[in-house]
Amino acid sequence: MKHVITFTGENINATVKVPTNTLLADAAHIAGIDIGQPCGGQGRCGRCAVQVTDGTVRRRSTLRLSPADIEQGYALACQTVVEGDVAIFVPLQEKIERRLTTDRVVAEVTVPEGYDYLQVQTIRRIHLELTPPSMDDQTDDWSRLQTALRLQHSFIHVSSSLYLFQNLGRVLREGEWKVTAIVDVSNVIRSGEFDQAVRIIDLQPGHLDEFSPLWGTAIDIGTTTVSLWLVDLVTGQVKAQVAEYNGQIARGEDVISRIVYAGKNGGRQDLRQRVLDTMNGILETACKRVKAKPEDVVKVTIAGNSTMMHLLLGIPAESIRLSPFITGVNHLPVMAAHEVGLGAHPEASVDCLPGVASYVGADITAGVLSSGVDIAEDTTLFLDVGTNGEIVLGDRDWLVTCACSAGPAFEGAGVVNGMRATQGAIEEVWINGDTFEPTYRVIGGGKPKGICGSGLISLLSEAFITGILDKGGNVNLLAHSPRVREGAHGGEYVVAWGAETESGEDIVISRVDVDNLLRAKAAIYAGFTVLAETVGISLEAVSRVLVGGSFGKYINVEKAVQIGLLPDMDWSRFEFLGNTSVKGAYLALLDWQKRERITEIAKRMTYIELSADNTFYEAFTSALFLPHTDLGKFPSVEAALQRN
Amino acid sequence: MKHVITFTGENINATVKVPTNTLLADAAHIAGIDIGQPCGGQGRCGRCAVQVTDGTVRRRSTLRLSPADIEQGYALACQTVVEGDVAIFVPLQEKIERRLTTDRVVAEVTVPEGYDYLQVQTIRRIHLELTPPSMDDQTDDWSRLQTALRLQHSFIHVSSSLYLFQNLGRVLREGEWKVTAIVDVSNVIRSGEFDQAVRIIDLQPGHLDEFSPLWGTAIDIGTTTVSLWLVDLVTGQVKAQVAEYNGQIARGEDVISRIVYAGKNGGRQDLRQRVLDTMNGILETACKRVKAKPEDVVKVTIAGNSTMMHLLLGIPAESIRLSPFITGVNHLPVMAAHEVGLGAHPEASVDCLPGVASYVGADITAGVLSSGVDIAEDTTLFLDVGTNGEIVLGDRDWLVTCACSAGPAFEGAGVVNGMRATQGAIEEVWINGDTFEPTYRVIGGGKPKGICGSGLISLLSEAFITGILDKGGNVNLLAHSPRVREGAHGGEYVVAWGAETESGEDIVISRVDVDNLLRAKAAIYAGFTVLAETVGISLEAVSRVLVGGSFGKYINVEKAVQIGLLPDMDWSRFEFLGNTSVKGAYLALLDWQKRERITEIAKRMTYIELSADNTFYEAFTSALFLPHTDLGKFPSVEAALQRN
Repeated sequence: MKHVITFTGENINATVKVPTNTLLADAAHIAGIDIGQPCGGQGRCGRCAVQVTDGTVRRRSTLRLSPADIEQGYALACQTVVEGDVAIFVPLQEKIERRLTTDRVVAEVTVPEGYDYLQVQTIRRIHLELTPPSMDDQTDDWSRLQTALRLQHSFIHVSSSLYLFQNLGRVLREGEWKVTAIVDVSNVIRSGEFDQAVRIIDLQPGHLDEFSPLWGTAIDIGTTTVSLWLVDLVTGQVKAQVAEYNGQIARGEDVISRIVYAGKNGGRQDLRQRVLDTMNGILETACKRVKAKPEDVVKVTIAGNSTMMHLLLGIPAESIRLSPFITGVNHLPVMAAHEVGLGAHPEASVDCLPGVASYVGADITAGVLSSGVDIAEDTTLFLDVGTNGEIVLGDRDWLVTCACSAGPAFEGAGVVNGMRATQGAIEEVWINGDTFEPTYRVIGGGKPKGICGSGLISLLSEAFITGILDKGGNVNLLAHSPRVREGAHGGEYVVAWGAETESGEDIVISRVDVDNLLRAKAAIYAGFTVLAETVGISLEAVSRVLVGGSFGKYINVEKAVQIGLLPDMDWSRFEFLGNTSVKGAYLALLDWQKRERITEIAKRMTYIELSADNTFYEAFTSALFLPHTDLGKFPSVEAALQRN
Repeated sequence: MKHVITFTGENINATVKVPTNTLLADAAHIAGIDIGQPCGGQGRCGRCAVQVTDGTVRRRSTLRLSPADIEQGYALACQTVVEGDVAIFVPLQEKIERRLTTDRVVAEVTVPEGYDYLQVQTIRRIHLELTPPSMDDQTDDWSRLQTALRLQHSFIHVSSSLYLFQNLGRVLREGEWKVTAIVDVSNVIRSGEFDQAVRIIDLQPGHLDEFSPLWGTAIDIGTTTVSLWLVDLVTGQVKAQVAEYNGQIARGEDVISRIVYAGKNGGRQDLRQRVLDTMNGILETACKRVKAKPEDVVKVTIAGNSTMMHLLLGIPAESIRLSPFITGVNHLPVMAAHEVGLGAHPEASVDCLPGVASYVGADITAGVLSSGVDIAEDTTLFLDVGTNGEIVLGDRDWLVTCACSAGPAFEGAGVVNGMRATQGAIEEVWINGDTFEPTYRVIGGGKPKGICGSGLISLLSEAFITGILDKGGNVNLLAHSPRVREGAHGGEYVVAWGAETESGEDIVISRVDVDNLLRAKAAIYAGFTVLAETVGISLEAVSRVLVGGSFGKYINVEKAVQIGLLPDMDWSRFEFLGNTSVKGAYLALLDWQKRERITEIAKRMTYIELSADNTFYEAFTSALFLPHTDLGKFPSVEAALQRN
């Protein structure tokens, strides 16, 4: 029985008749439509996803598709057969890729349900009407304002700043004694006592619309990337998102090299200024998008690892690097933006979220909040792999955490052709299991310059599954391919020939590169196995694995499992949450109770120092294989190997 | 009967025999010793004071001598007769003058009785010993410090600054976990509650000697002069005193012109920087004298009039100048030195004392404290005449205050040959009643350039008493002297001929000058008469008149009464207290209860706005005479006129 298959899409309009159980990929081929299958049609890369808009199909594999994707009709052309007349929409392939890779990660930011600015926000915008002065009432401006705050809003103690005093007289008179004050009521709201001091951030002439935007911003300072969300505190909505590479990168790829640089003459000041420049730059960009000014931003909540927090504030970080690995300060007081050096309103409340230890910082406490590990009913593993790897295991009753010095291999460092995920980086690789020929995607679409983290994971996984690499990470020089060869650093595999690359040199992965990557992934895998052991939990007992960080944003679970970076468990247990740190900062920015929860999280988390423990070293060495010395722990990988 | 009179002194060694009741001045003359008598031997100038080291004399008049002077044997040569053999020490005349003019004013600063640093000082220096970190205890530095503060000193809440965080790690490690903290315990000491927050100002490695100096400074910002006392907070001793002209003078002589300048483009910033430069300059000078550094100063208490306080902090002062004459802020919170811009320790507590109104500032509240008006048992009049005139009347039960816009005439402004009390200024004048020839003293001793405030008061008084000026301030052109003549601005009196002066031009006082001075003195006299009337008190009921400010420092009560600036009452009721403002700041710097008393004083003082009242204008016009339209109010002046 034949079925009518209709293909539509940009510049695509074709119909073919094919029998039941024909692969969509084949039907498309018949229709003259090119649907790329970089992985050779094994359903591993997801690049051939199309949308079934009508009719019945059967999906053999949906590995690369999320439930939401399937809900919307997506199907992998290489893994899906027709069972009747079918209408297919073929998205622009890059668009699909983008959608797939981002869809799993950055959900549209939804305002927390029931967000009530007047209940949970620590910043308030209030109207005041002052008695004008006269010869009979020569009270000073400031007392007059205090009286209005007391009588009209019950705020008994008000603290102010030189900034306010310098602007007070002008604003009161411009507003003809009607003014709008922006106040930080944290102390009152937390204690429920009106005799606690409120702090005036700004005063503006006249009575401004109560519902016009009141700007706040949540910032995550990553070692590599700084992410900023600009938020209207009244509605809670995220109005702009901007990210930029941390300007400190020029002074070191990872936290350790930054700390070393900070210890040099002028280094601390230099690093501080660099990250401030980055932050102020993206703040300005974000503000421009909503036609606001940076000075309109009155509250800033900052997450970031402990080193980033120290460097932002010019606090020496040397003790973080040296045994016994101590931070200067984990819980910072709220400061004013001008003290910190941020280009927001000079008196904006800047809240640097609390960290736990030298290598478990506020990015993790914020991540725990936004991922909800601290209120999870079942045992949850939270994994944040950015430039470093931090792991949290626990539920609403207990939380343990550790950090693994994975190193920046997944950021492309320590790998000869490694690079950061920027223009020209190979970000995904598929290898044909028969020909060993690779297909790759380059960020920005031009000639490749190198391979970034997600590309390396994908390359490692593909090379292993197709047999180019063995379990020990050795290059199989017997493979029938000109791409496999003996190089300066032992066996190597050529991902891109010089003719295709930006530099004209071959882009390869060598034995040494593989070793560095194995050490990085082994550190992370050993981290959560030891953490689980420490509390006597088996990985099987972990009901959910939540992955945050830039890592989770660009790689996929299948390949990460195949190289033994993530544990092999039912993929439905994995959730990729994207930047959980900035999301946690956003939640803390909005809601004082969530902010308190972060403090609680920081207090509750028991930090396990891995380097203090021999168990870790054993787990680490066992994990220095693809995927692991014990393949029994990775049944799905075993099955994949058997398929190939 | 003849007596042996021995004179000694620098280059003086002479003996004469004179009969009983011989004037010392005459005996000296016989001995060939020149003792100047600028006032013609009327006992009014005090320049002829000598010291009786042995023997018996009889003093006819001791007008120009304080009880302490007499105690030390001082006697006016023109007013003292011998009654036996006498030994006389003749001081260098300039030295006497200096001693006399300063002795009345700046008493050696004595530490308040029973000053107990540990009881009343808000700044404490405490020793802490922290548990060193280890792999088993990776608590951050800051938490470790907080724990030590809690366990070793019961301070539960500690606030800190970025400055501390930036230095914390280094200091803890340098001190090998033994450190000395300098903390501001104001909140705890004021409330008596240990759960109030203390603020860490500084942390130093090791355990510093508890009794080594802990530096604080009291500063009075005068419109003309900035005075600074450097104080060891442990002992309470003033270790250095430095004064310098306020660098703002170049931008206006009086507060009004400064406010106007501040309103110009960049003016506010310019004035702020200028006074900061002055303050930081004298702070450095003072610190050098005690071999300390400005950064060692951890507490700063500042007094000054409301305009000076606003300009120091960059707060617009325009509303002070314009009806209804409102300050921006009277009660300022304690700030850190780096916020204010002071070169003390960046985290030093800077306490700007509270003012009452636009023209009754913290210089007056501090003055009331140091003069004790607020605890006086009898009605006391406190008068502070610097560039402006402020008056306080009251006792321990009530306090009223007003300000008179005397203007800067006594600072030399508005007077053609007027100038400030600096090098080259004629600071005292004596006129011979017979010849109308003047004698004058020039600051620094060189050729005169002009006449300063004390010189003008002295000149006015002398000219009036000798008949050169009549009651209305008119120059008596009939006086037989070439010094009296018709000038461009009406009648004038030549104080110094061009041949004697720096410029080669005559230094004169004209009718116009006299009018300006009369207005200034009338404003002040009218001020306290109206203030007294307002509360239904006659001036006779005032038991003490306390005079503070630069005015009281350089002029004498006799001459001030003679021109009708001060009320004519028994001179024993007058006390010249010098700079009561800096003294009040000093007391507040030492003792939190005295500091609280200033706040109480500011609250208790009822400000009377003179310009709102017709009574003032009447009193003012009545006072526009020498000494007053009603000579009956000035019996001593009447008597002096009769003597002449």
